[in-house]
Amino acid sequence: MQHKSGGVHTLSRNLPSIAATVALCFSASVFAQSTPLAPREVPAKTIPVPNTVSPELQQIIAQPLRNGWNSQPTTPEGWKQLAESIRVAAVPNVEAMRARLKVKVEPGVMAGVKIYTVTPEKIRPQNKNRTLLQVHGGCYVLNPAEAALPEAMLIAAIGGYKVIAVDYRMPPEAYFPAALDDVMSVYKELISKSNPKRIGLIGTSAGGALVLEMGLRAKQLGLPLPGAIASGTPMSDSTKAGDTFYTNAMLDSVLVSTDGFCDSAAAFYANGHDLKDPLISPIYGDMSGFPPTILTSGTRDLLLSNTVRVHRKLRNLGIDSFLQVYEGQSHAQYGRDERIPENREAFTEISTFLNSHLKK
Amino acid sequence: MQHKSGGVHTLSRNLPSIAATVALCFSASVFAQSTPLAPREVPAKTIPVPNTVSPELQQIIAQPLRNGWNSQPTTPEGWKQLAESIRVAAVPNVEAMRARLKVKVEPGVMAGVKIYTVTPEKIRPQNKNRTLLQVHGGCYVLNPAEAALPEAMLIAAIGGYKVIAVDYRMPPEAYFPAALDDVMSVYKELISKSNPKRIGLIGTSAGGALVLEMGLRAKQLGLPLPGAIASGTPMSDSTKAGDTFYTNAMLDSVLVSTDGFCDSAAAFYANGHDLKDPLISPIYGDMSGFPPTILTSGTRDLLLSNTVRVHRKLRNLGIDSFLQVYEGQSHAQYGRDERIPENREAFTEISTFLNSHLKK
Repeated sequence: MQHKSGGVHTLSRNLPSIAATVALCFSASVFAQSTPLAPREVPAKTIPVPNTVSPELQQIIAQPLRNGWNSQPTTPEGWKQLAESIRVAAVPNVEAMRARLKVKVEPGVMAGVKIYTVTPEKIRPQNKNRTLLQVHGGCYVLNPAEAALPEAMLIAAIGGYKVIAVDYRMPPEAYFPAALDDVMSVYKELISKSNPKRIGLIGTSAGGALVLEMGLRAKQLGLPLPGAIASGTPMSDSTKAGDTFYTNAMLDSVLVSTDGFCDSAAAFYANGHDLKDPLISPIYGDMSGFPPTILTSGTRDLLLSNTVRVHRKLRNLGIDSFLQVYEGQSHAQYGRDERIPENREAFTEISTFLNSHLKK
Repeated sequence: MQHKSGGVHTLSRNLPSIAATVALCFSASVFAQSTPLAPREVPAKTIPVPNTVSPELQQIIAQPLRNGWNSQPTTPEGWKQLAESIRVAAVPNVEAMRARLKVKVEPGVMAGVKIYTVTPEKIRPQNKNRTLLQVHGGCYVLNPAEAALPEAMLIAAIGGYKVIAVDYRMPPEAYFPAALDDVMSVYKELISKSNPKRIGLIGTSAGGALVLEMGLRAKQLGLPLPGAIASGTPMSDSTKAGDTFYTNAMLDSVLVSTDGFCDSAAAFYANGHDLKDPLISPIYGDMSGFPPTILTSGTRDLLLSNTVRVHRKLRNLGIDSFLQVYEGQSHAQYGRDERIPENREAFTEISTFLNSHLKK
C-alpha cells in the first residue's frame, strides 16, 4: 500500500484511550483466541413507543405484554380447551374482518382434510389459474377453524387470490407429523389438478415453518415444488436457537420469551420427536431447489433471527428470496389487522412477490 | 361467513384467563383509543453468544462493548485528534487486509478531492466498464485516509470491481455539506466520462447515509442517478428516531447507544444545521426515482430500524430494493474483516446485486 505523504503522524503520541477500540469499528479486527464466549449483560431499559410507525401501529406497540404469557396448559385437555376458547374469542373479530375485506369463506373438505375456500370480491385476472394454499400459525396447537382465517382473508383480499386455508389436525387429536401430512394431502390434491408453478404456499409462525417443511417433504416424496412460498416469521428452529429469542425477549409483546407458550406448544406437537428434525425445525433441512420465497418479520420479533437465518440459507443456495422487516413489530403482528397501514403494506409486498413468481 | 357445524362451543364456558389475550396474537385486534402510549419496561438480561453464527463471528460477538463508548471529544481539536489516532491505529490492520485481499491501493486526486483507486488482482470481465464510488463511514468525522479503505478493498476483491474510495473532507476542516460536496464532485467527474448506469455507489454507516444523500442531491441538481446503490446500515436518521436505537442499546457492541460518539459526531458535522435536513437524515428525503438499492444490517445493529425504514420507503415507491440482515451482528461489523464467513457472504450478496443492476 502506498501511504499518503503529509500525514499528521505526530498527533499519534496523544492517542486518547478510546482510540484503539474505536478503530475496531471500521477497520480489520483481530480474532480473540480461545477466550470463553462471554454473554452480553444488558441493563434494564425503558423503551419508548417509536414515532417512526403509523399512529395505528403505535397503538398496537403500546399494548402491554400479552397477559399470562408465561402460564400455559399442562395437560392435553388444557391445550385443547385453550385452542377452543381462542377460536370462540376469535369468531366475532374474524367475521368483522371478513366483512371489511369483503371475502367469501366456505368450509369444505379436500383430500379428507378440513379446509376453507376463501375468495375475494374479484379474483385478479392474472390470478385466474392460480391458487394459494394457506397454513395457519398458532405454534402447531392453536387457532383451529375460524381462528385460522385472518391471513387467508388478507392475502385473498389484498392480492386478489383464491385461497385454500387448511384447518389441519392438531394435538391432542393428532401429533407430529399430522399437521404436515394434512397440508401435504391438500397440496397433492391441488397439484393433481393444476400446474404446481401456479400454486403458492403462504403461512405465518408455525404456518411459516410448515410451508418450508412442505418444501422439504415434497422433495423427500419426489413431488414437484410450488411456484413460490411466502413464509412469515417462521418457527424455523424449535430448539430455542436464534439470537433474537434472547435479544428481543420481554420486548416482543406477542410471544414475549422462550418461556412463553409457543415452545411448550411445539414440544406438545412434537410429542417426543426430535425437535431438530427438519420437518419440525426446517432451518436444519436442505432447501436446495426451493422456489422463490418471501420472508416477513419485525424488529421486535422474537423470531427475527429465525427469519433472517432462513433468508440467508436460501440466498446462499442461490434461491431468489426476499426479506421484509417491519419497524417496531412483534411476532406475526403484521397478519392481525388490515386497518394498520404497515400490515396492508406487508401483504401488498407478499402479493407483489407471489405475482411476479407464480406462473399465470 | 359460514360457520362450521359441530363446533364444541360448550368448552367456551371454561375460558382460561389467558385465552382472550392469546387470541389477539393471531386474529384481528381492536385499537386502543386515546390511551397514553406506554413504553415497554424491559428487565436486565444476560444474552448468550448465539451458536447460530460461524465460530469466527461468535468471537466477534463475544467481545465486550467498545471501551469508553460513552466518552467522546468535546472540542474540534479533540475530534481531529481522535480521527487521526484511529487512522494511525488502523494502518497496520488495513495493510494486512490489503495484502490478504491482494488489491492495489493508489492515492490520488479527482475533481480536487482526495481519493484512493482500489483495484483487484483481476477485474471481472462484466465489470470492465463499471466503476464503484465508495464512501466511508465514521459518523461524518472519523476514518480519514487509510482508515476509510476496508469496505473499498472488500468490494474490489470480492466483487472484482475497480473502486474509487473518496477521502472526503471532515470537521473540523470542513463541516456540512462539505462531505456531500466532495463525493458529488467525484461523482460528477465519473459520470462525465462514463454512462452513469455503469457507476455504483457503496457506503456504510455515515457512508451509507451519504450514498443516499447523493441520490437526493443528484435529483436536486438535475444530474442522472447512478445504476445502483449499496447502502450499509445507513445513518439515515440522525435525529435519534428509530426503534432499534433503544431496543438494541447496550447490545450493539460497536455504537452501543445514542449516548455514544456517533450522534455527537453527526451533530459536530451538522454544525448547527437542522439534523432533519434530508441531506443529513436522508430518510426524510424524496427517494422517488432512485436506482436499485441493497441494504445491509444485523439483528443487534443500533441502526437496524434506520436500515429497514429506508428499505420500506424505497419499496413503497416501487423501487427494486433488497434487504439483508445478519444474525447477531452489531453496527457495520460486516465490513470489518473478510476472514469472517458472514462478511464474505454480505459482500458477495452486494456484489451479486450490483452485478445484476449496473449496466455492462
